Amino acid sequence: MPGGRRLLGGGTLMRAAVFHGQGDVRIESLPEPEPGPGEVAIRVAHNGLCGSDLHEYAAGPLFVPTAPHPLTGAVLPIVLGHEFAGTVAAVGAGVTSVRDGDRVCVEPIYRCEDCPACATGAYNLCRSVAFHGLQAHGGGLCEATVVPERTVHPLPESVSLELGALVEPMAVAMHAVRRHHLEGGTAVVFGAGPIGIGVWHALRAHGVDDVLVAEPAVARRAAIAALGARVLDVDSRDPVEQVMEATGGVGAEVVFDAAGVPAAILAGLRCVRPRGAVVSVAVYGSTVAVDPNQLLSTEATWTGSLAYTGEDFRAVIDLMARGHYVIEGWVQHVDLDRLVDDGLEAMAAGRVTKVLVDVGAPP
Amino acid sequence: MPGGRRLLGGGTLMRAAVFHGQGDVRIESLPEPEPGPGEVAIRVAHNGLCGSDLHEYAAGPLFVPTAPHPLTGAVLPIVLGHEFAGTVAAVGAGVTSVRDGDRVCVEPIYRCEDCPACATGAYNLCRSVAFHGLQAHGGGLCEATVVPERTVHPLPESVSLELGALVEPMAVAMHAVRRHHLEGGTAVVFGAGPIGIGVWHALRAHGVDDVLVAEPAVARRAAIAALGARVLDVDSRDPVEQVMEATGGVGAEVVFDAAGVPAAILAGLRCVRPRGAVVSVAVYGSTVAVDPNQLLSTEATWTGSLAYTGEDFRAVIDLMARGHYVIEGWVQHVDLDRLVDDGLEAMAAGRVTKVLVDVGAPP
Repeated sequence: MPGGRRLLGGGTLMRAAVFHGQGDVRIESLPEPEPGPGEVAIRVAHNGLCGSDLHEYAAGPLFVPTAPHPLTGAVLPIVLGHEFAGTVAAVGAGVTSVRDGDRVCVEPIYRCEDCPACATGAYNLCRSVAFHGLQAHGGGLCEATVVPERTVHPLPESVSLELGALVEPMAVAMHAVRRHHLEGGTAVVFGAGPIGIGVWHALRAHGVDDVLVAEPAVARRAAIAALGARVLDVDSRDPVEQVMEATGGVGAEVVFDAAGVPAAILAGLRCVRPRGAVVSVAVYGSTVAVDPNQLLSTEATWTGSLAYTGEDFRAVIDLMARGHYVIEGWVQHVDLDRLVDDGLEAMAAGRVTKVLVDVGAPP
Repeated sequence: MPGGRRLLGGGTLMRAAVFHGQGDVRIESLPEPEPGPGEVAIRVAHNGLCGSDLHEYAAGPLFVPTAPHPLTGAVLPIVLGHEFAGTVAAVGAGVTSVRDGDRVCVEPIYRCEDCPACATGAYNLCRSVAFHGLQAHGGGLCEATVVPERTVHPLPESVSLELGALVEPMAVAMHAVRRHHLEGGTAVVFGAGPIGIGVWHALRAHGVDDVLVAEPAVARRAAIAALGARVLDVDSRDPVEQVMEATGGVGAEVVFDAAGVPAAILAGLRCVRPRGAVVSVAVYGSTVAVDPNQLLSTEATWTGSLAYTGEDFRAVIDLMARGHYVIEGWVQHVDLDRLVDDGLEAMAAGRVTKVLVDVGAPP
């Protein structure tokens, strides 16, 4: 099996979604892993599909290593899945923070603890960073997975396993919102996919009520409008013009690019207020032709946001426990066996916003 | 005469450098202006030549308006010059802060006082901003010029008129250094022209002793090395590699682009530390193909710095009064009559770093 994980016991077989290369994700039977010292085995209930999973499927291997990863040793083929929640099935020696039956989600980052970023606590920027289910073996798209104890976040009783599987993408968005010190004003979000929706929720949690959203896909636009966002008319008018109108000519306090297309960055740099911020949270596939004079004329800052740390996870879980996150209208469930056709292919075709793959029944 | 300025008195003629269009700067005889209410007439001692002046001469009109400027009404032809110091020759009605004979320099910004930027005090970002000697009539490259009282900064006794003429470019650099909250560490400056040299001085004033400079021109490199900067070998090695070596693999706390070439921005984004800052202070002539993933992987911020406010002027004048600025090795004097050949053309050919045009003898 990939990575040579120890067995959970008795050589029981489980279903797993294994990425072998471009367009090649197979549901295979693999022996269940068992936890080593300091590790936790989790029976996965739901695992969300991420844009990264789709990118691997459509054009990979990209993040998935083709030579052993320097930190984890993982290499293609890889069990996919890094957004998951489930119940603890077994714990290894020395594990004290969770026990069998606990409902948990996982912060799927492995880091070196040794580089300049790790030294400052910004381990999301670790130079050897690896994500479970992409650059480490045994992702969440299988019935049981083993992770280090420190990556496990217990879920309060009021947070369902369904919500738990959404903590990871919502933490990505929370981290992005925390990259800029908010002082009120108008926020603009380009892209109403799961991250854009997460940015909307995180902004609201930070007291920002005036959120304008630019999203070309009609279904996504309707979904975020139903949540309460003001959607811009991107079909017939320049979004920059609309942001300027909506802000009395000042521009937005902060702009998030959760779209990952050059047009979003370029519009964002044009509609941000003097000394405001543009935050890129989308991964790009190409360069963007930016005019630096644009940054001079506003003294705005452009920054990036990558993943999250535990602080973001805890903030999202806490908000979920208080009923802050609404998942009606943008989340669909798919069985593990239908992962490719109803999950990855449906995402590629733009038929779905967020797919949660049902891996195992909750206990 | 351009702009129809009032006469300083008696119809006396004076020499002035008038920009008529690309490659066409003429030393002409114009009647001396006299100050209206709230205005100050200054006999100019020295006026520095700026990259903007060269750009106008080589490829303009660029900043110089070809239709009346919305704020100042100025239009081509224009008397050039926005970096100058001199002595007060006359004051208009109501002027109280200076009097005849005072030695002063000028913060050459006109602003609307009405736009969102002006409302926050960031009038350097005024949407109608105009600069004396570019978008307002009667620049410093003439024997007498008239400016609003609020733009006049008195010079302490220990600051020469020569230094006074350098306050403006040094304030540009001071403003750039203040765009990022410095917490020690290594700074990198791309470009050792007058602004790069100003950034070096401003960094030192902020307690940053470790400054690495990347500059391809040998003479400029020698000049800033003589001031005490560590210069990188940009002829045979990648500057990014050298910054990484010099910082133990961490990267620079802050990078300044005072070069205005895409290679500087792209290298800057690669050698900045996690969550550090890249500050663009150079005006660009083209777009730059930036990979947004570069900003994601470091969560660095990229921002621009435009001109200055009075605070920057006061900070520079105060440091000059304390002997902080060294001008040996990078400043050359040229007579107004030799402005084109020994000033603008010498700059275009890279023969000089900073030219101060001697307009009138100091009293």
